[in-house]
Amino acid sequence: MKLLVVGSVAFDAIETPFGKTDKILGGAATYITLASSVLKIPSGIVSVVGGDFPKSDLEMLHNRGINIEGIEVISDGKTFFWSGKYRNDLNTRDTLVTEVNVLENFDPKIPDSMQDAQILLLGNLHPGVQLSVLEKMNRRPDLVILDTMNFWMDTAWDTLMQMIARTDVITINDEEARQLSGEYSLVKAAKKIQEMGPDIVIIKKGEHGALLFNEGRIFAIPALPLEEVFDPTGAGDTFAGGFASYLAKKEDFGFETMKSALIYGSAMASFTVEKFGTEKLQEVTEGEMIARIKNFKELTTFEVEV
Amino acid sequence: MKLLVVGSVAFDAIETPFGKTDKILGGAATYITLASSVLKIPSGIVSVVGGDFPKSDLEMLHNRGINIEGIEVISDGKTFFWSGKYRNDLNTRDTLVTEVNVLENFDPKIPDSMQDAQILLLGNLHPGVQLSVLEKMNRRPDLVILDTMNFWMDTAWDTLMQMIARTDVITINDEEARQLSGEYSLVKAAKKIQEMGPDIVIIKKGEHGALLFNEGRIFAIPALPLEEVFDPTGAGDTFAGGFASYLAKKEDFGFETMKSALIYGSAMASFTVEKFGTEKLQEVTEGEMIARIKNFKELTTFEVEV
Repeated sequence: MKLLVVGSVAFDAIETPFGKTDKILGGAATYITLASSVLKIPSGIVSVVGGDFPKSDLEMLHNRGINIEGIEVISDGKTFFWSGKYRNDLNTRDTLVTEVNVLENFDPKIPDSMQDAQILLLGNLHPGVQLSVLEKMNRRPDLVILDTMNFWMDTAWDTLMQMIARTDVITINDEEARQLSGEYSLVKAAKKIQEMGPDIVIIKKGEHGALLFNEGRIFAIPALPLEEVFDPTGAGDTFAGGFASYLAKKEDFGFETMKSALIYGSAMASFTVEKFGTEKLQEVTEGEMIARIKNFKELTTFEVEV
Repeated sequence: MKLLVVGSVAFDAIETPFGKTDKILGGAATYITLASSVLKIPSGIVSVVGGDFPKSDLEMLHNRGINIEGIEVISDGKTFFWSGKYRNDLNTRDTLVTEVNVLENFDPKIPDSMQDAQILLLGNLHPGVQLSVLEKMNRRPDLVILDTMNFWMDTAWDTLMQMIARTDVITINDEEARQLSGEYSLVKAAKKIQEMGPDIVIIKKGEHGALLFNEGRIFAIPALPLEEVFDPTGAGDTFAGGFASYLAKKEDFGFETMKSALIYGSAMASFTVEKFGTEKLQEVTEGEMIARIKNFKELTTFEVEV
């Protein structure tokens, strides 16, 4: 197993200025592993869903080469459900409904088939649950990637600090990096976060791109400017999925590989936002992905005389 | 004359989370031409100040090779004054005082020594005043660069449209681009703005970098992540100054040159924000500028296998 993902598999109901959906497939682990499947990287999910979760969705994941053995189905429970409405700028969204349901008592169980994972990607969950995954691994994966959010900073600071201390790569957004570090400058913020544990800090800035910090080195990329931005849900998870999958593909975690991985993550995320939910991610071919990487290169390459 | 700048020369009083100033030298034309002087590009200012404007500031500009013949001094008038306070995130600021003073009836007069300008940069002023400058030029400059803001979209739309129609390059921020075009996607916004006149649209995103649009081609750069961000005042004008000065230096307005010019503008702006007002810009050497361009290259260069 190249990539083990522990995170939500869920239902979302989304409203954007361009339309709305009923309950559709969502969840961090879903976006992350779908991104992996585009790059043909074997990945597995550890998660929990309720009896209301469609078999067809499980089959879809399985058919894309995703190991779903670790998705526990609690037949008399209900799947995590989130509903939100994006404002006109698409940068801010209001949560309408959060039903934690079976995720409330999520106790991750790592199947034997996933114990040898090279990369462990811990999606945004309670840091106590994230820590428990590390405890349950027979050997520490070569790379531990952590996603988290401001909610856990507000409600589970000490546990979060323990988890961050055992992390190699942390991905958070710019506001969260500022909150976590107490620093306004993202350069200073990244340094402070590195002191908490992770060698690598990735700051996600949505439509403004991303920053990668490692030992005093910085790499910055813009996001691909898109003609159509339809639904930003899952973009951050897709980014993490593209990033981790590229590292898994290369089996190398050096700075230059991380830089390329950032490009892959960003290009992958640019597909997700073009349609509702996981729709686009389920259609994307490797060829389209390669074309988009080339767009990225054109978008950012320059020669400058000094 | 390589570069003629028509814009404010003013006083600012600034408060940031890191300190506050009394009235200090400010104004768009000041930042723009100081940026030019770092690159040793001959520039001239057309503006107006009051009798309260210090001779020492005029001398400083003159000593840096800036032609100040076009700065009219109205001895019984007062210089434009703006005072503002930045919030903790430095991205939003509240205006405390705006005293338009002598700028109220600004009637730009173009000295003969500036009539041959290759590049005309029209700083953020009433679009009627900007139009009058074009009328007063004996020959149209090879390149007309326009800066404007949402205030003129709200209060002088028709005149602004006339001005934009006669512009080659427009620089605005992302919110303003959306307001001007009525489009959320910046790619669509840029297309609509190009239809209004300018071949080149530059969208400034502050700490998030900038986008350059020309004939379906897009170039994107992040901003240089800085350890210290002290005072954002004048960053946008410095950016425009660095951009225009690089074009003036190359005497070429092709897309590849524009891309490099964007890097120069962004690097130059990264100095301005490191100290209050124009302080840093007055100290920067060409060597420091070259070092920062190299930082930029490191920050953004990647090789990616597809």
